[in-house]
Amino acid sequence: MNENLRIDISRLKRRLDMVNAIGALPGGGVERLSLTNEDKEVRDLLCKWFDELDLELRIDQMGNMTGTWITDSKGPPVAIGSHLDTVGSGGYFDGSLGVVAGLEVLETLKKAGVMPPKPLSIINFTNEEGVRFTPDMMGSFAFAGLGDPNELWKAKAEENHDLSLKNELENIGYLGSDICGQYPLDSYFELHIEQGPVLEREGIDIGVVEKVQGIFWTEYLLKGNANHAGTTPMSMRRDAGYVAARINTFVRDLTKQIGGVQVGTVGITNFFPNLINVVPQDVRLTVDLRNTEKNKLVEAQETLQSFVTKVAHEESINFEFSELVRFDPVDFDKNMIYSITMAANSLGYSSRTMPSGAGHDAQMMASICPTTMIFIPSKDGISHNINEFSSDADIEKGANVLLLAVTNRLGI
Amino acid sequence: MNENLRIDISRLKRRLDMVNAIGALPGGGVERLSLTNEDKEVRDLLCKWFDELDLELRIDQMGNMTGTWITDSKGPPVAIGSHLDTVGSGGYFDGSLGVVAGLEVLETLKKAGVMPPKPLSIINFTNEEGVRFTPDMMGSFAFAGLGDPNELWKAKAEENHDLSLKNELENIGYLGSDICGQYPLDSYFELHIEQGPVLEREGIDIGVVEKVQGIFWTEYLLKGNANHAGTTPMSMRRDAGYVAARINTFVRDLTKQIGGVQVGTVGITNFFPNLINVVPQDVRLTVDLRNTEKNKLVEAQETLQSFVTKVAHEESINFEFSELVRFDPVDFDKNMIYSITMAANSLGYSSRTMPSGAGHDAQMMASICPTTMIFIPSKDGISHNINEFSSDADIEKGANVLLLAVTNRLGI
Repeated sequence: MNENLRIDISRLKRRLDMVNAIGALPGGGVERLSLTNEDKEVRDLLCKWFDELDLELRIDQMGNMTGTWITDSKGPPVAIGSHLDTVGSGGYFDGSLGVVAGLEVLETLKKAGVMPPKPLSIINFTNEEGVRFTPDMMGSFAFAGLGDPNELWKAKAEENHDLSLKNELENIGYLGSDICGQYPLDSYFELHIEQGPVLEREGIDIGVVEKVQGIFWTEYLLKGNANHAGTTPMSMRRDAGYVAARINTFVRDLTKQIGGVQVGTVGITNFFPNLINVVPQDVRLTVDLRNTEKNKLVEAQETLQSFVTKVAHEESINFEFSELVRFDPVDFDKNMIYSITMAANSLGYSSRTMPSGAGHDAQMMASICPTTMIFIPSKDGISHNINEFSSDADIEKGANVLLLAVTNRLGI
Repeated sequence: MNENLRIDISRLKRRLDMVNAIGALPGGGVERLSLTNEDKEVRDLLCKWFDELDLELRIDQMGNMTGTWITDSKGPPVAIGSHLDTVGSGGYFDGSLGVVAGLEVLETLKKAGVMPPKPLSIINFTNEEGVRFTPDMMGSFAFAGLGDPNELWKAKAEENHDLSLKNELENIGYLGSDICGQYPLDSYFELHIEQGPVLEREGIDIGVVEKVQGIFWTEYLLKGNANHAGTTPMSMRRDAGYVAARINTFVRDLTKQIGGVQVGTVGITNFFPNLINVVPQDVRLTVDLRNTEKNKLVEAQETLQSFVTKVAHEESINFEFSELVRFDPVDFDKNMIYSITMAANSLGYSSRTMPSGAGHDAQMMASICPTTMIFIPSKDGISHNINEFSSDADIEKGANVLLLAVTNRLGI
């Protein structure tokens, strides 16, 4: 019977609209930074829905919320999850789609009178975005037992360093008592917008995520000399801005040299003193390198580091660097990947396997259970932006693929 | 007799110290932004010195102050000038040295009982630095009849756009009645620190300034797309930061290609949104190009513009540009240049001709009378900085060269 079940796109969209009425911005888009009043409000709404669907609510030390459809089985649940927090001036779909699609799948099964052989959990992870508190994906990191809540609780709110994560969990009433890292899962699914342009460009309905790119973030502080732009001969300059520019263009060349899915971005560049007629003395810049293969990522980073050393020496400037982030690539479970491809096929949707270039809670879950993700197209690849958009038709396809794959995993 | 006259370095330094007690900064250096209370105070001090030396004070519409030793001659005066305003956190010598050296030369001649065949004027120009009001060199620009005071009066104070230049001239009591552009000069001398490293590096006492570099300032606004640093393939990026970096490294290559005294600087670079994991959407950057030959400067600017067009096209980004400043190179008077070289020679000081890489009031004066400048070494080439330094020995040499050249020009 499971192949005839379909989600109700109207019901799914109603929930999505209710979620995004909270923190709605005047010009469109939404802002629900982690552990703010808006986050409390959307969590309260999720509790209400868990209650209406007769799910067992558990809240852990990090505020991660799990609503479980308890069945006769004593085994670990199949889980569907994502996050309800957003970036500042964020979009309508990032995170919230995954949570409401999970509720929709569960409600579709309930309404069909099915009693699954395994429990089914819907999870809302705390602070996926990492905007108000760093690092990102903090809730799922702790859920998977990868980090100590006692340390993570110390994170300070970006806008006020007197507020800790633990304070703010208490303030909004979501500091739970469940110990993190002690909740086994059968498997984990996450439906998410692609946040990139590939599916739309290729006209493909479903992205089957087989791996998550590793991410290396490095910050460089370049220290040269602030000299007069008119009176200092070129040969006597120690121009930190020029070295920063050399690094920037090298990062582009490096992505060509490594090839494949290697990407590289210089996102931050701050000049000091940043005056029109003064040779830049200091520059802070960041390099974001990503690859799905760890050896290539390490090669890219090492090649970059050698280049920075060489060009800094040539210009007689000093530099310091900090490794801000080192996330190794994550491979998803081959059977889970296969189940998504088969679900898309049987529903008549086109699909392709692809890596995720962004980080997701799923990459943490992959360390504790078979995991994969389903991507749907993002218009123009835009995300973390009020113009983020995915069509109802694409959402419906993605949610039906999720329904079918989860149904299969549940053994219905 | 004139070759036996010498300035009194102690008296000169006393005046320099008195000037720089006004606006002195706790850690050294000085801040006397144009038309502030500090500027009023230093102008009042200059009036007192003009009075003590029995000079005739004239203040023009732009607040330029001229103190003239009236002699029997009815001809136009020989002038020595510079400026008493400074940049923020400025140095001890930039501008103020030229004014107090002028006073010292005049007092030396007076004390020697000389009665020159021509009048001798000391000038303090308004707002040379252009920090609190733009453009820079505004006072000398108007003094030379190159700009209309009615327009220049409208300049707004950087810190408060409700304050105009005219308001502030009135507020500090230095809005004069003399019409600008109607005060003929026999000639103009300016003693200044080099503000660059050349004299110190070459171990030369005196720089004989034969020309002032032309300055072209251009602002570029690059407009690409803000995409996710993980999910956007390299081939689909429109990275304004990368284009900015290409322009920066091209400016360096361009200075090698043009060669000679060509310099080029990217001093300002602002990324937006300036986030570690977002491809830069917009960049504002400035390019400062300088050369003593106009045709080379024009060639450099045109080559740059072609490059920007090409690289913006390759990356599919848009750009706008504004010509912020276009100062053509200025050649100083050959006889005046020769007189400085001869004065240095006869005093036994080493000298070399050189261009000025910075703008100075002298370049405005060059349009109305024979003009030149004398440079003395700047330690480490540092200027516009509290660490600006020139030794007493170098100041004494420079002021004695000024004395001898002015004496010759006066026909004593």
